[in-house]
Amino acid sequence: MVRLPRSSRLLLALALVSGGSPAGAGRISSATQDCIDCHRSVTPGIVADWEASRHAKLTVAEALDPARKPLERRISITAAPAEIARYVVGCAECHTANAAKHKDTFLHGDQHVHVVVTPQDCATCHPVETEQYGKNIMSRAHTNLKNNPLFHSMLTSANGTDVLEAGKLVSKPGNALTEDESCYGCHGSKIEVEGFRDRETSSGKMSFPVLKGWPNQGVGRVNPDGSEGSCTACHARHAFSLELARSPETCSQCHSAPDAPAYRVYRTSKHGNIFDVLGKTFNMDAVPWTVGKDFTAPTCATCHISQIVSKSSKVLVERTHQMNDRLPWRLFGLPYAHPHPLDPDTSIIRNKAGLTLPTELSGEPASKYLIDEKEIAARKQRMMSVCLSCHSSGLVETHFARLENTIRTTNALTRTATQLMEKIWGAGLADRSNLFDEAIERRWVDSWLMYANSIRLGSAMMSAEYGVFTNGRWEATRAIRELSDWLEDHLKSGAKPAKKN
Amino acid sequence: MVRLPRSSRLLLALALVSGGSPAGAGRISSATQDCIDCHRSVTPGIVADWEASRHAKLTVAEALDPARKPLERRISITAAPAEIARYVVGCAECHTANAAKHKDTFLHGDQHVHVVVTPQDCATCHPVETEQYGKNIMSRAHTNLKNNPLFHSMLTSANGTDVLEAGKLVSKPGNALTEDESCYGCHGSKIEVEGFRDRETSSGKMSFPVLKGWPNQGVGRVNPDGSEGSCTACHARHAFSLELARSPETCSQCHSAPDAPAYRVYRTSKHGNIFDVLGKTFNMDAVPWTVGKDFTAPTCATCHISQIVSKSSKVLVERTHQMNDRLPWRLFGLPYAHPHPLDPDTSIIRNKAGLTLPTELSGEPASKYLIDEKEIAARKQRMMSVCLSCHSSGLVETHFARLENTIRTTNALTRTATQLMEKIWGAGLADRSNLFDEAIERRWVDSWLMYANSIRLGSAMMSAEYGVFTNGRWEATRAIRELSDWLEDHLKSGAKPAKKN
Amino acid sequence: MVRLPRSSRLLLALALVSGGSPAGAGRISSATQDCIDCHRSVTPGIVADWEASRHAKLTVAEALDPARKPLERRISITAAPAEIARYVVGCAECHTANAAKHKDTFLHGDQHVHVVVTPQDCATCHPVETEQYGKNIMSRAHTNLKNNPLFHSMLTSANGTDVLEAGKLVSKPGNALTEDESCYGCHGSKIEVEGFRDRETSSGKMSFPVLKGWPNQGVGRVNPDGSEGSCTACHARHAFSLELARSPETCSQCHSAPDAPAYRVYRTSKHGNIFDVLGKTFNMDAVPWTVGKDFTAPTCATCHISQIVSKSSKVLVERTHQMNDRLPWRLFGLPYAHPHPLDPDTSIIRNKAGLTLPTELSGEPASKYLIDEKEIAARKQRMMSVCLSCHSSGLVETHFARLENTIRTTNALTRTATQLMEKIWGAGLADRSNLFDEAIERRWVDSWLMYANSIRLGSAMMSAEYGVFTNGRWEATRAIRELSDWLEDHLKSGAKPAKKN
Repeated sequence: MVRLPRSSRLLLALALVSGGSPAGAGRISSATQDCIDCHRSVTPGIVADWEASRHAKLTVAEALDPARKPLERRISITAAPAEIARYVVGCAECHTANAAKHKDTFLHGDQHVHVVVTPQDCATCHPVETEQYGKNIMSRAHTNLKNNPLFHSMLTSANGTDVLEAGKLVSKPGNALTEDESCYGCHGSKIEVEGFRDRETSSGKMSFPVLKGWPNQGVGRVNPDGSEGSCTACHARHAFSLELARSPETCSQCHSAPDAPAYRVYRTSKHGNIFDVLGKTFNMDAVPWTVGKDFTAPTCATCHISQIVSKSSKVLVERTHQMNDRLPWRLFGLPYAHPHPLDPDTSIIRNKAGLTLPTELSGEPASKYLIDEKEIAARKQRMMSVCLSCHSSGLVETHFARLENTIRTTNALTRTATQLMEKIWGAGLADRSNLFDEAIERRWVDSWLMYANSIRLGSAMMSAEYGVFTNGRWEATRAIRELSDWLEDHLKSGAKPAKKN
Repeated sequence: MVRLPRSSRLLLALALVSGGSPAGAGRISSATQDCIDCHRSVTPGIVADWEASRHAKLTVAEALDPARKPLERRISITAAPAEIARYVVGCAECHTANAAKHKDTFLHGDQHVHVVVTPQDCATCHPVETEQYGKNIMSRAHTNLKNNPLFHSMLTSANGTDVLEAGKLVSKPGNALTEDESCYGCHGSKIEVEGFRDRETSSGKMSFPVLKGWPNQGVGRVNPDGSEGSCTACHARHAFSLELARSPETCSQCHSAPDAPAYRVYRTSKHGNIFDVLGKTFNMDAVPWTVGKDFTAPTCATCHISQIVSKSSKVLVERTHQMNDRLPWRLFGLPYAHPHPLDPDTSIIRNKAGLTLPTELSGEPASKYLIDEKEIAARKQRMMSVCLSCHSSGLVETHFARLENTIRTTNALTRTATQLMEKIWGAGLADRSNLFDEAIERRWVDSWLMYANSIRLGSAMMSAEYGVFTNGRWEATRAIRELSDWLEDHLKSGAKPAKKN
Repeated sequence: MVRLPRSSRLLLALALVSGGSPAGAGRISSATQDCIDCHRSVTPGIVADWEASRHAKLTVAEALDPARKPLERRISITAAPAEIARYVVGCAECHTANAAKHKDTFLHGDQHVHVVVTPQDCATCHPVETEQYGKNIMSRAHTNLKNNPLFHSMLTSANGTDVLEAGKLVSKPGNALTEDESCYGCHGSKIEVEGFRDRETSSGKMSFPVLKGWPNQGVGRVNPDGSEGSCTACHARHAFSLELARSPETCSQCHSAPDAPAYRVYRTSKHGNIFDVLGKTFNMDAVPWTVGKDFTAPTCATCHISQIVSKSSKVLVERTHQMNDRLPWRLFGLPYAHPHPLDPDTSIIRNKAGLTLPTELSGEPASKYLIDEKEIAARKQRMMSVCLSCHSSGLVETHFARLENTIRTTNALTRTATQLMEKIWGAGLADRSNLFDEAIERRWVDSWLMYANSIRLGSAMMSAEYGVFTNGRWEATRAIRELSDWLEDHLKSGAKPAKKN
């Protein structure tokens, strides 16, 4: 087949359209067709994946068809940009958008292509979602970890390579390759263009950017266009399946480990049970999403993100991509559970002691940086409106009374563990210059990061398993009693562990 | 729409029926229709859920249709009570049943409604299942825990809030909100009416009962009508899907934690493997349930509860809701595995030492309270008849020989761990007045509650994973050797941990 | 129904065939029909399972139909053996194959039947797969464990029954029943005929072999015909579903425990996420298997075993049942990750120190027994060709750079842990005559068998969870620091734990 230069093909496509094109002709932009012509054989899997997607089937104008009810719209612009309106959303529509802003842009064939599609690119059609997502702590997950010296010391303590030097245990810092596949795997990497490299390809020698930090789909990825976040964390390329984004397994990638086992907790709740078994009968792709008709048990998205309507099309709760919009408290203790931070940039927080923590070590909230009672009440009300679509007021109130009780009691456990740890530091049995590097400090971390968090998530989702035996109260009280025993034993023996760096 | 008073609507409904009603008219009782008229907008999710259920589609009389073969029946009454025969099973049929017995009954509109539907209510149509379930230890799971001082001290030790008072670690008892979401989440809460409260609703001010312990669906829930148990533990409201009840994910809610990981063990067995992958092709809703046709690998229900038939309609094993009917031994060690208790009320058990345990601390069974050899053989035979529907006698015999061997060897491990613990108590290094509150005691508990139990479940379900590395023999022998090291270290140092309360 | 003797029935079947049989008649061999006639009522489940299988629907000749494209073939013979060509693959075709070689053969009715179907039996139609599988370390999993004194001491240390004798902790060796359901559950048992036993059956008294080690489907099972391996480990009897073999849940049976959590790691990767949610839309039974069309995310089989083609029928990677054919390194550390062994029999390996380990205790590879750089490169290239069917070269190269970096850093962690352990042994604080039996030795084992392995699998599959908090770097560095603390504490106190045997 003779390949025409792109300009000629574009003219041809236009001619076909103006002259009365056959069904489907001209719906794929010639730029995208250029991509497909090669990539169908170079990377056949993703081309086939995209071909089955909604992006490949509907032009932007069709997605905005006035005959479509507002509740059924899946994009948040009100008018289609002229240059893409009549095309489906293909390779070029995303990978050449905002080319000038992208440091990873390179000339590929005759197009200026970038590798990493960012929230700023998706905002072409999904601006409301992008804006909401930017108000989300998750969108800053990289910088909030990188720029908070306390949190960052946890990263370096975990990722380092311990070696013995002259008989002494020393931790060598982990390198970038390690960090990008561990903490920054979820928090998001910082993607930087290190240069360009020529490669032999089936189309001859071509030049490609060398990207540090890529691949990565962490939620707070720092992108080559300067934006923060990654839509593909949940909306995996290149099918962009809504069912995928709404399914709890997607959240599980970053919310399953013992520090944040939300997915595993959900699986042991009655809601998770019903989804596991009967989820196959749910319509996970419907917009709007009708409770009782499309689904009979909530997924993560139902409670935290999705718009929900009743059979009579009443909106029970609005869609939000600011994931904390329905979250009065941050159950994830640092080390204490606390009202949600006001600003997505949490690296600005300082408690009275000057630490970059949302509470004092005593548990008192650093209120200046956290939402107030009024906002707490508003967010709680939004979450309750999800519950109330199936449950009675009395049930829902008791549920939240239990959760608030559990926040208090687990914070009290954390206070006790922290007091014991302060005694250990005070007695010189451990060194508080780094809070996370010694074995006994890790046991303290267990008590709040693993156990108190699990108990609170268990309470929030009604999982008795995580309330007791799976990293629950049984383990939390054990950890505290071990800290106490360790302190007494070491006070008696006078043994003093060597400092780890 | 004009709302007629209930009495008028009832007359209208009767008129419609006698005068030749359109298809379906009159199948919903007017009392239920009253509920739906409001709740369709108040709690749309559950109304829609119920509308898709079998309860909403079939009248009681139709469920008893003589044309239906006995094996196909899903209810265990032989004649339909006149007052409900011609109605589908709707809101009112359950939530107004036995109203006088229910302390949670309240006047709601013009009906006497109760919140908590109980086994006694379900017995209207499912009396055989209710009676069998009552013979089940699970039906007493709340009182067996509450009334057994030894088991209850485990609950209080786990759920307490540890605080430092005058430098001493003290455990403050957990409150009712905590207990209801932890241990009693599975064991069942005690639901009590604390009073009534007025609420503003879309229909004006209404009064509702305030229920302590609600929501809860634990298997041994103590109900406001005095009954024990909760059918919704497995048959989740309001769809009451048989597929759900038969799916292992349902059992997983209370049988996944490390003390009782039956579900997780199942998932790693070949049976679980086949169900995971091919279960979607199974007919999980069929009655009768035909091996090889409706399913090709067992779920929890297949082995423990369900009636199974062959393609030629031969009953291979009878249905039972007495879940221990096919269980010769209780693999769940307390601390030793033992023959099943005779009576569902296990709080009456006393071993020779006067402890409320089914065995001595030496492992010897408290035989007077346990089933005898004959009953053991009968239950084993029933379970084997499930296995034999697919497997040869030789295979099944070796399987049970392995399991009985594993009961012996794991009980021997528990004996050793207990002897070491007795030495620790004897040397004054721990205080046996509460067996579960000190860190070293919890390591002893690990050895039997977590590890020996996991090994036995691994053996029962042919999971090598739980036989060795996942809380299996590798961990069991490690725990014992740690107990031994701890004893020696502390005998040498003379260190004596402070008493926890 | 009157049962004719087998000989008459055979003649009848032949007559039907030669005289122009009705559709389907004569497709089941008379020998197999004999089996079915009884087993339909004796073990109805497996007969029904088989009836729904491909084996029951296609004769061997039809499976070789020249009209079928080579890529569509599911068997690897080129011509059908005359004696089975026109029959479907039924009971007798497998359970009477190679009868003379099978020590478990017995006269059953009028047929010489064996219980255990082996790779040698399957090779009748699947010789290429059998041969490839034999080059696989997995095919020697029993003997490699049994004949390696070091690895075998891990088995005995874990499976033993610890008892107190004269106040001293002693480990009694586990018995065969224990070993067969623990380590050999995955590694494969050795099946031996212990004798024959008469049983009463529905057809009168019959004699059956008594098989030691049966049931078992471990990958390196030593069979009664002398062969090694078990096809049913993945291709579960009697449906032999290709979907099952290709689904990750099948691999999970032996690759889920903390020492080898490949399946659990996969579940937390984006690939696993997509499969979990959208796998139901995949065609898991297609041959050939087309990327992007039949599946849009890989399962274990995709990367390690399956042939993959593009929509244009280009073979992207060849099928292999030598599972390490695409594996340059063995990530499973013993105790260090290393290039793959050359020979499936790893019991022949000796490091310079004379230990049966693929590396020195310093980490240096025992290169003589391991694949060389050229073979490493070839295998890496094959694996990369899987990745490249969806991903760009740059992405794939960084992925492998991360993995190779992680092999280096985790091996460095293992080196440090081992140096600490050597100090502990050197100081007489533990006894190195058995490396796996003391509590502190198990903590050392954690650092490499559980944590370094998990980190490497996390890297290989892009799971940040296993990179950090789930048995990842957080735990690996903790274990090392605990070993260091333990050494210092015990050097100070002079405490010396008693030797465990």
